[in-house]
Amino acid sequence: MSQQWQERARPACLERRYRFASYDALRDFLDQAAALSEREGLYPDLGFGRDYVNMTIHADEASGSLDERQRRFAQLIDEIGDQGVLT
Amino acid sequence: MSQQWQERARPACLERRYRFASYDALRDFLDQAAALSEREGLYPDLGFGRDYVNMTIHADEASGSLDERQRRFAQLIDEIGDQGVLT
Repeated sequence: MSQQWQERARPACLERRYRFASYDALRDFLDQAAALSEREGLYPDLGFGRDYVNMTIHADEASGSLDERQRRFAQLIDEIGDQGVLT
Repeated sequence: MSQQWQERARPACLERRYRFASYDALRDFLDQAAALSEREGLYPDLGFGRDYVNMTIHADEASGSLDERQRRFAQLIDEIGDQGVLT
């Protein structure tokens, strides 16, 4: 899992902020992330605007802690790749 | 402009919250909103998760107040229609 993910507590979650070189690259990333959500049945909270995307992967509701499923999702998001990602 | 838009001050913006019956309907809405942003050159802040979308249309940066352009964008968003929108 990329170092750019930040782990937070109370509530436990993984957060990452992206900046994009173009709106097209941003839209493409959102599309791939949404498709991954449907495949994995895991739906992070996403915020976006003209050139940024914030992603928050929340802990498992039942346990309240981050488990393998959330970390794997972060890894899969990383594998979408950094095409058009500035930071 | 639909009554469901809420106008806020400090900072001036228009906000609307949507709930969707399905993730597909949510993705379709996001796609159309993003295409509209590119056509209009106006990029609201959007937040979304499994079944909701929050949209914030910020005031014009220079004037700091809401003008015709933001209200027109809200109207165009309304015209995307409420397909799959619960609330």
